[in-house]
Amino acid sequence: MVDIAADPSHPRYQSLLLRHRLEEAAKQGMLAGSALIAHGRGEAYDYLLGEQTIPSAQLATARAVHALRNAKCPVLSLNGNVAALAGKETLLLAELLQCPVEINIFYRTPERMDALLSHLEAIKKNEDINVEVLGGEPNARIPGLEGPRAKCTKEGIIDADVIMVPLEDGDRCEALVAMGKTVIVIDLNPLSRSAKMATITIVDELTRVMDNMVLMMKKPSEDLNLQTYDNDAVLDQALQHIAGKFSGSKHEE
Amino acid sequence: MVDIAADPSHPRYQSLLLRHRLEEAAKQGMLAGSALIAHGRGEAYDYLLGEQTIPSAQLATARAVHALRNAKCPVLSLNGNVAALAGKETLLLAELLQCPVEINIFYRTPERMDALLSHLEAIKKNEDINVEVLGGEPNARIPGLEGPRAKCTKEGIIDADVIMVPLEDGDRCEALVAMGKTVIVIDLNPLSRSAKMATITIVDELTRVMDNMVLMMKKPSEDLNLQTYDNDAVLDQALQHIAGKFSGSKHEE
Repeated sequence: MVDIAADPSHPRYQSLLLRHRLEEAAKQGMLAGSALIAHGRGEAYDYLLGEQTIPSAQLATARAVHALRNAKCPVLSLNGNVAALAGKETLLLAELLQCPVEINIFYRTPERMDALLSHLEAIKKNEDINVEVLGGEPNARIPGLEGPRAKCTKEGIIDADVIMVPLEDGDRCEALVAMGKTVIVIDLNPLSRSAKMATITIVDELTRVMDNMVLMMKKPSEDLNLQTYDNDAVLDQALQHIAGKFSGSKHEE
Repeated sequence: MVDIAADPSHPRYQSLLLRHRLEEAAKQGMLAGSALIAHGRGEAYDYLLGEQTIPSAQLATARAVHALRNAKCPVLSLNGNVAALAGKETLLLAELLQCPVEINIFYRTPERMDALLSHLEAIKKNEDINVEVLGGEPNARIPGLEGPRAKCTKEGIIDADVIMVPLEDGDRCEALVAMGKTVIVIDLNPLSRSAKMATITIVDELTRVMDNMVLMMKKPSEDLNLQTYDNDAVLDQALQHIAGKFSGSKHEE
């Protein structure tokens, strides 16, 4: 797998590269036991999307960048898979937004937190990125959640008016929405509870979204009518796209 | 995860039980690095099926049992995930069919083969099952495949007229079809190359299929018109079922 991932001309290069990143992260103790299974579910949905950013996802991404840019206190949340798959891109985006990132994991252990913090610090050093990484010393709790997964940081998640939680579980997404925040979710399954709950749902693959966001931050905003953004319509378009993959498939080959 | 899997009243019991079996198998060295990701893809498709055996899958399962029952030399092939998830059920079915099973893995190493052979021998002993397990000493190759993945057994895969290859990759499925065999595939993705290639495609979750097959073997055949079985129609019905999940989803909750 490592060898193939080193060859960008391989037709499955991008997919194998992501798997390789997860394997490395697993070795470093960054991931929960369910991380690879969750990634596999994502692979299945991305296959159904045609492994591309569909127009409604592009619109949702632009709307999310607009919300983050105009936020008073934006924050980007990372779990293990996000740190492994797009740690660098998340830090780059946070630097452009001049906002902190916060590590917020479901299965919280000191070892996993240390591994994630070290991983992000190494990226910051290598890439010369100046971003505050929160989450190592939680001092608050997300109301409505129980156990270690509620732990968070006052100056990060609690104070944020706009929060991006890629690959987030439904419970936490719901709790954040209940706090009155603008919640941006990246989720390849348009039927998931997170996807339905969020203020802005980007049905697209994480690393494509992060690259798109960094690009949008670097060039002037497109002339999109983002004020009339309709998240239900965006979700519906993703559903229709995938349904078309199934109903039209007989004539594909 | 282990604790939840011990409580059958948990709403995700079956799903967690399967994950638990894979975790145990991983510890025993039975699985390839990509096994958990592949399982995650399966979970996504099973979610789209509604985690149920749909009518067209039931028909395909009945057709598969009919083919296995009437075969001269049937054989059931197992890879790592199949042995981990449904090793016992596969051996039970083989005993009812009085046929051998053959371990046939994509990433073949002596250590993985030993782990898989030990696992199946332990099940045979515990459950008092009398079935020949082939694959440990390959003496033939599947034409059209390269490398270790081509290795197989003359008295198993080569001589079989009907072969069941659950969770099989497209290349091997294609090679077996090209040998003129009746190839039965169990695959949750009706769009996969294996699903499209196979003689009989069961779009259903492995352990449900195995339980259904054992049940069908134990009671007299249902009065189904299996001679006019149309695999394209079966695949199409699975596709329509999943498409309906997406197009009808707005009104679901």
